[in-house]
Amino acid sequence: MASVPTPTTVKDEATAPTTIRATVVQAASVFYDTPATLDKAERLVAEAASNGAQLVVFPEAFIGGYPRGSIFGATIGHFTPTAGEQFRKYYDSAIDVPGPEMDRLASIAENYKVYLVTGVIEREGYTLYCSVVFFDPQGCYLGKRRKLMPTTAERLVWGFGDGSTTPVFDTPIGKLGAIICWENKMPLLRTAMYAKGIEIYCAPNSDDREVWQPTVRHIAIEGGVFVLSAGQFCLRKDYPPPPEYLLTEWEDELQPDSVVAAGGSVIVAPSGEVLAGPNFEGEGLLTADLDLKDVARAKFSFDAVGHYSRPDILSLIVNERAMKPVTFTSHK
Amino acid sequence: MASVPTPTTVKDEATAPTTIRATVVQAASVFYDTPATLDKAERLVAEAASNGAQLVVFPEAFIGGYPRGSIFGATIGHFTPTAGEQFRKYYDSAIDVPGPEMDRLASIAENYKVYLVTGVIEREGYTLYCSVVFFDPQGCYLGKRRKLMPTTAERLVWGFGDGSTTPVFDTPIGKLGAIICWENKMPLLRTAMYAKGIEIYCAPNSDDREVWQPTVRHIAIEGGVFVLSAGQFCLRKDYPPPPEYLLTEWEDELQPDSVVAAGGSVIVAPSGEVLAGPNFEGEGLLTADLDLKDVARAKFSFDAVGHYSRPDILSLIVNERAMKPVTFTSHK
Amino acid sequence: MASVPTPTTVKDEATAPTTIRATVVQAASVFYDTPATLDKAERLVAEAASNGAQLVVFPEAFIGGYPRGSIFGATIGHFTPTAGEQFRKYYDSAIDVPGPEMDRLASIAENYKVYLVTGVIEREGYTLYCSVVFFDPQGCYLGKRRKLMPTTAERLVWGFGDGSTTPVFDTPIGKLGAIICWENKMPLLRTAMYAKGIEIYCAPNSDDREVWQPTVRHIAIEGGVFVLSAGQFCLRKDYPPPPEYLLTEWEDELQPDSVVAAGGSVIVAPSGEVLAGPNFEGEGLLTADLDLKDVARAKFSFDAVGHYSRPDILSLIVNERAMKPVTFTSHK
Amino acid sequence: MASVPTPTTVKDEATAPTTIRATVVQAASVFYDTPATLDKAERLVAEAASNGAQLVVFPEAFIGGYPRGSIFGATIGHFTPTAGEQFRKYYDSAIDVPGPEMDRLASIAENYKVYLVTGVIEREGYTLYCSVVFFDPQGCYLGKRRKLMPTTAERLVWGFGDGSTTPVFDTPIGKLGAIICWENKMPLLRTAMYAKGIEIYCAPNSDDREVWQPTVRHIAIEGGVFVLSAGQFCLRKDYPPPPEYLLTEWEDELQPDSVVAAGGSVIVAPSGEVLAGPNFEGEGLLTADLDLKDVARAKFSFDAVGHYSRPDILSLIVNERAMKPVTFTSHK
Amino acid sequence: MASVPTPTTVKDEATAPTTIRATVVQAASVFYDTPATLDKAERLVAEAASNGAQLVVFPEAFIGGYPRGSIFGATIGHFTPTAGEQFRKYYDSAIDVPGPEMDRLASIAENYKVYLVTGVIEREGYTLYCSVVFFDPQGCYLGKRRKLMPTTAERLVWGFGDGSTTPVFDTPIGKLGAIICWENKMPLLRTAMYAKGIEIYCAPNSDDREVWQPTVRHIAIEGGVFVLSAGQFCLRKDYPPPPEYLLTEWEDELQPDSVVAAGGSVIVAPSGEVLAGPNFEGEGLLTADLDLKDVARAKFSFDAVGHYSRPDILSLIVNERAMKPVTFTSHK
Amino acid sequence: MASVPTPTTVKDEATAPTTIRATVVQAASVFYDTPATLDKAERLVAEAASNGAQLVVFPEAFIGGYPRGSIFGATIGHFTPTAGEQFRKYYDSAIDVPGPEMDRLASIAENYKVYLVTGVIEREGYTLYCSVVFFDPQGCYLGKRRKLMPTTAERLVWGFGDGSTTPVFDTPIGKLGAIICWENKMPLLRTAMYAKGIEIYCAPNSDDREVWQPTVRHIAIEGGVFVLSAGQFCLRKDYPPPPEYLLTEWEDELQPDSVVAAGGSVIVAPSGEVLAGPNFEGEGLLTADLDLKDVARAKFSFDAVGHYSRPDILSLIVNERAMKPVTFTSHK
Repeated sequence: MASVPTPTTVKDEATAPTTIRATVVQAASVFYDTPATLDKAERLVAEAASNGAQLVVFPEAFIGGYPRGSIFGATIGHFTPTAGEQFRKYYDSAIDVPGPEMDRLASIAENYKVYLVTGVIEREGYTLYCSVVFFDPQGCYLGKRRKLMPTTAERLVWGFGDGSTTPVFDTPIGKLGAIICWENKMPLLRTAMYAKGIEIYCAPNSDDREVWQPTVRHIAIEGGVFVLSAGQFCLRKDYPPPPEYLLTEWEDELQPDSVVAAGGSVIVAPSGEVLAGPNFEGEGLLTADLDLKDVARAKFSFDAVGHYSRPDILSLIVNERAMKPVTFTSHK
Repeated sequence: MASVPTPTTVKDEATAPTTIRATVVQAASVFYDTPATLDKAERLVAEAASNGAQLVVFPEAFIGGYPRGSIFGATIGHFTPTAGEQFRKYYDSAIDVPGPEMDRLASIAENYKVYLVTGVIEREGYTLYCSVVFFDPQGCYLGKRRKLMPTTAERLVWGFGDGSTTPVFDTPIGKLGAIICWENKMPLLRTAMYAKGIEIYCAPNSDDREVWQPTVRHIAIEGGVFVLSAGQFCLRKDYPPPPEYLLTEWEDELQPDSVVAAGGSVIVAPSGEVLAGPNFEGEGLLTADLDLKDVARAKFSFDAVGHYSRPDILSLIVNERAMKPVTFTSHK
Repeated sequence: MASVPTPTTVKDEATAPTTIRATVVQAASVFYDTPATLDKAERLVAEAASNGAQLVVFPEAFIGGYPRGSIFGATIGHFTPTAGEQFRKYYDSAIDVPGPEMDRLASIAENYKVYLVTGVIEREGYTLYCSVVFFDPQGCYLGKRRKLMPTTAERLVWGFGDGSTTPVFDTPIGKLGAIICWENKMPLLRTAMYAKGIEIYCAPNSDDREVWQPTVRHIAIEGGVFVLSAGQFCLRKDYPPPPEYLLTEWEDELQPDSVVAAGGSVIVAPSGEVLAGPNFEGEGLLTADLDLKDVARAKFSFDAVGHYSRPDILSLIVNERAMKPVTFTSHK
Repeated sequence: MASVPTPTTVKDEATAPTTIRATVVQAASVFYDTPATLDKAERLVAEAASNGAQLVVFPEAFIGGYPRGSIFGATIGHFTPTAGEQFRKYYDSAIDVPGPEMDRLASIAENYKVYLVTGVIEREGYTLYCSVVFFDPQGCYLGKRRKLMPTTAERLVWGFGDGSTTPVFDTPIGKLGAIICWENKMPLLRTAMYAKGIEIYCAPNSDDREVWQPTVRHIAIEGGVFVLSAGQFCLRKDYPPPPEYLLTEWEDELQPDSVVAAGGSVIVAPSGEVLAGPNFEGEGLLTADLDLKDVARAKFSFDAVGHYSRPDILSLIVNERAMKPVTFTSHK
Repeated sequence: MASVPTPTTVKDEATAPTTIRATVVQAASVFYDTPATLDKAERLVAEAASNGAQLVVFPEAFIGGYPRGSIFGATIGHFTPTAGEQFRKYYDSAIDVPGPEMDRLASIAENYKVYLVTGVIEREGYTLYCSVVFFDPQGCYLGKRRKLMPTTAERLVWGFGDGSTTPVFDTPIGKLGAIICWENKMPLLRTAMYAKGIEIYCAPNSDDREVWQPTVRHIAIEGGVFVLSAGQFCLRKDYPPPPEYLLTEWEDELQPDSVVAAGGSVIVAPSGEVLAGPNFEGEGLLTADLDLKDVARAKFSFDAVGHYSRPDILSLIVNERAMKPVTFTSHK
Repeated sequence: MASVPTPTTVKDEATAPTTIRATVVQAASVFYDTPATLDKAERLVAEAASNGAQLVVFPEAFIGGYPRGSIFGATIGHFTPTAGEQFRKYYDSAIDVPGPEMDRLASIAENYKVYLVTGVIEREGYTLYCSVVFFDPQGCYLGKRRKLMPTTAERLVWGFGDGSTTPVFDTPIGKLGAIICWENKMPLLRTAMYAKGIEIYCAPNSDDREVWQPTVRHIAIEGGVFVLSAGQFCLRKDYPPPPEYLLTEWEDELQPDSVVAAGGSVIVAPSGEVLAGPNFEGEGLLTADLDLKDVARAKFSFDAVGHYSRPDILSLIVNERAMKPVTFTSHK
């Protein structure tokens, strides 16, 4: 299901330089198969680009996979014998930044002339991070954002990011950044992004419930931003069959075509208006034309980090230093 | 329209001491007539109490009135000759804290054995504040909250609160506080309230648009709180006729029964589920039974000021000092 | 199983004021029943005191319970409908610090004239912490230690402590502190405790594997300290039966008498010598007489924070500030 | 005694590129005869290589000798007349880095195509250092590690290293480094090595007591690393006879075949499992196949410098500058 | 043997306020008996004071004892079973700073109205330091100096000081400081003391050889200072008999009256002239009158930290920070 | 007076390559006659070489002359009319480096196969420097050392050297360098030389007092070096008669044979033992055989720039840049 504005609309908007066309991808990773996932990413970018997309946003953990329903053999105070091996396999699907998979993503962005934003599972040392990486149409890697706070069971496998990776990129298509999944619920983190001037707020995520919708609409209003919420739509068969991969604790009987992640991707304007989606029905591309002038229109009446702030009363301190348990110094 | 749970349900819940019954009042002030407004308040509290309400929440500016559609004779760089007089009349409808109207409100709370939370226009010196006042069932005045940040044209007539009036009261029915209207969009202010442990989050307001709904639902989710959003439902005839009162800049032709404020009051659970409302149709009471255990259930997966915070990266400083332009001191 | 030195030894040692008798309790909580757990704690302290114990150390989470094998209805990206309710019940078993359960523990310490160290599940706001609390024989609460770093699935239900609760108490029976479970693997945290002069190093924990033994012996050697490792010994029937309590993902079929936590409590001297235990066989008390002079004997050849440190090369900074996402200030 | 896995196992593993075969040498130096010690080193490397070893680790001070039981004519505040001469002879057995003995070691590594790691006594100016040197199978000298902290009486003859020689080499067989003898007890130093990503942790040492075993097993667990602990096995006759060499203060009467160093070499996996040894019986080679994937399996649940660190609370600063008492500068 | 200037000389000098009378004590500690050593210290101060001394300087380690000829059961790579216990006894003879022995020393200084400078063995945690403590005639503790660098076998039992304890006290009798034993050979450390303006340079030491004399005379010349070199004179019987105390490795047969430390205390003027001593014959007091004007006389032609320095070429950096392996911080 | 070891000893030692024979020359310049001084130098080198000397060290300013007792017509704020002329004559006796006198010295070294070290007065532009020049037995000029710091009245005629001329030459007979006269009192300068590894420490000087002896003995001990202290022995008649040359301010009446410089040359071993001299009686050669192994023997217990340094506390920065008042640069 791809909700694409009619070509006519596109043409009209094309005369306004402040309108950009953005596509949110709702699709599943090829689990435990990063090369195949990259191939799939390329096909989806190609399709979006053929629709005129200048920006393509993929879901959380699209590269590396979102280990939905797994507990990696760990319960409180207990590990099954295969716990370490489950982690090792997932670890092997993750990518180094930089690394060959990053090069592949960069060349996709370059070939299809798009800004590419995608969730990845990043490997540093022996800790994994749920990250989002950004590329420009020239194939340059712009930077990354690491999830600060994994949610509940995600803490089993993902480390905690720090304040050094909260970039907002000032690009020709607007100020671009990302917050990942339930981090979007963190009011202080969002405020930090608003303070950096974010306009195109990407929200790769994995929450496919209806209650996610008011949150993303609220963010658009609170921040005066376009929100591009991208989720995976996955069937049971998108994951390896048991026992290689277990969706522990699923209450219903699962068939290969059982939906295990319903997506719910959506694009919202700064006014809170829904521009495309939400899509709860299948994989697909959502596309909308974003009039960047809407940001100013919205900020007129509410600007959380401007005229509607009270810095005398409420001041947020953001620590952007890289947090390292060990610092090596070779100069005074 | 009053959505009241059936008596049966009420009985069942009555055995659970952690469930409390709350009523949101959606009604219009009697503009320029504060004694009449207080009488109306008493009638509405009586009705709510007869339904078993333990807590009654009124809209923003219910006492004193929300001067909808007015610009008080002021444009940028210009005043009409009647500007001062318009303000004087509005000023006369406001109340002192403490003062006789406060005593009247306290006795209403005591007579009907409810926690009473209502918006008032507070007068201090020659500045008006958009405040909320709190009373307990023993008729004690608990304290007040002054709006920090009037929205756009509200800044013509209302002053700015400070950090000294952001109370959360730890009562037998839960931790109770209020944020007024668009202040609810301020992520740092909400976070301050979460940090004070708010559970029953009152949101007296004047935003009757549909886009207000995702915001209040998001707040419930973000804060793990019950949100009680109370708005006025007003017809043109609820305000004095022109020229005594002008609803400047209204696009459509107004009839006495034209709706000028559509309410939209709503009660939301910590899960984001709507318990009662929204009511866009008329004056009325919304009642719901709040299971306070839902707070813990919700905080399990997200606690913005507990396990899901990152104080090492994001730290909010709240200045609670009273801000006075002049300080007299007799010691160094 | 209680390994108690013969009375003769006790008498001999009693003349040496630098020898103290310590008991490690290996026992299971009464799950979801905090009052009964407190009763059991009192019986065990009474037994230890009748053996002459001056210090009694209980396992991690003894008060509040260690939710072994549970995942609280959470898998990655998914919650069962009862997830919140599971948390709520566990939350209700936790204790406030201070609070009535703390008063009960204090009176136990006072009645039996012992230093009492026990793991508790502490509740603050809506976040739970795995803490250890300390009492002296006069019934005074000395302070607490919150676990900094829950392990893997523990992160589902426990928050993260900070540097403000890493006390070492200088008591008449030696310098007393605690590190909880796998935190004991954190070399920087251990070093902080050594720097505070810890001599009696309590290690309430839940790791019942054989590989835990070299770790605790190593710590004794590395720190020049007595290590008192206290674990719970639990059978399946010590937890409520399903469906009230699920031990998810247990690979063997469980009978009521199936061992789900094998204890492994042990007392180790600064030389690395095992003084009592390890006990892998059942509930019981382990008792040993600790000659505090052994600390100096051990430090002669290795003192990780003294003569064998290299502060010019390796310097550890410990941040002891309380980490709060929101700070309220009412003075300049 | 050489514990070598059966050829079958080797073949199986050979297909897995992440498994490497490592040999720990337990043998005595030829004291005061560095050329003969180098010859012996070559014979032992040859034997290890014929078993398929890709990495060979020798004990502390293998080249230059560990002056066991000597006090070099020095007691506190006193020197015997021959003290200086004893030092001079030991000094003459030490090697320069670079120098001819280093060239010889490089050619051994190259000839037998192994990574070679060996303890040496290094001479710089008139201070001796207990160092470890590293060579690759191409015969390249990779670098060295100087012991930071000699233990007790070692401080009579060995200087103190600094932070400039704590390398971890990223080689095709894994990340390789070494900590020497009781330095392994230094928690901050170990943490620095973990932060550099060490996977194959060589521990050339001279502690032949049983209590060394829990320490090396703990390190494997704490660091998620393979530990290769190599000690010398020495008889009295491995040292020159008195009066040329005195083993002062030995409590038992010594015969030529008296054991004066019992070795205790061992190879431990990241899980804490012992893969080969400990050997307390004689000289010999210990060989094991190391599956480097075990590192990731272990780090899943504990990563002291990754997801299980708390850099906000505990931060280690490592000064890697070379520490020179005098610095000459010829530019501004 | 007490070399005391004749009273006549004293009287003459008494008219010159820049002349002060100083006494160097050459005496043995009562080993393993700190209270008795303190009693002996008091008797010696009393005797010095009766001779008019304003300053009394005791030898290195006078309080706590210099463990001459011991190796504490440690040889390289080996400990005898009693090593720890030997240390423990020595540790028990050491003193805390502050502590009761310090109070006793302070009262001695006050009672006899002298500046008192004495070597002590200081205990902090489980590391011992060879320190010198300073008191004024009012009984105030002025501060301490910790030996930076124990010599050879001293490193078995004493830790390493840092730059935070290198005081020079500006007192009415001149600028007073101390360097301990072979530290006096450290040219950079001496230079640091010169830079602090030291005039009365105390050198508590344990080097009783003739070659110590040119060193102390050189220092007087190089620094333009008075050097007060105080050593212990000890017979074998001043130490406990074997096996309680062993003077290991003494080449001659020892009788109770065998001299094991020959003293060699001496007082030298800034010109290099010997004012009193050296005494190699027995316990005793050396007294001299120091004309502080001699300092200026000497500095005229050579001032190592003034006109005769070349800071453009030779600059010494002294790090006076306390070096702690662990730093706790509770503020930003 | 020449103290020469017997030939027998020489032969024995000749088989030991680490022993070298060194001669210190104590003699007077031929004042104002540099060619004659060079002839005298050759005669003295010839004599030394015939005794087997491999190294010959001359006094400070031997070539060019030490203008003892002169003030060159200058007092503070005043010059006599002949002041300039006095300087001119002295300037004419000085030598250029390089220059013909240097060539002559080189050929002497080559002819007699010795290392030659001599003080010279060096001329650069119109500034004179008190320098020492070094030649090897092949007649190569090795380099020079300029006195950093002239003493008191020397500053009337000599300039100040810089850090670019502090060489230590690594020669087949050991590491060779020189410090001139009272510079030897500079602890930082000596330390710089130790850090460069000096073993044969030449000290051409002009201090003939007894107090010079402890200084040179101390340096030998402090540095673990052989010190070769060479002074001139001069009678009044070695200088031109008045008025051509005035020995101003001499207290005693001078006869032609009055001793105006008493020499005091001496050779000291690293242990502080005097190997030859001091000679206070007349011109002559002092010869000693230096066993370079003594350096290691001495460094065992004290190494000021190795194991006995504290670079973390005391760090010396040596600026070796040439210091030029004007720098021309053609690039940024």
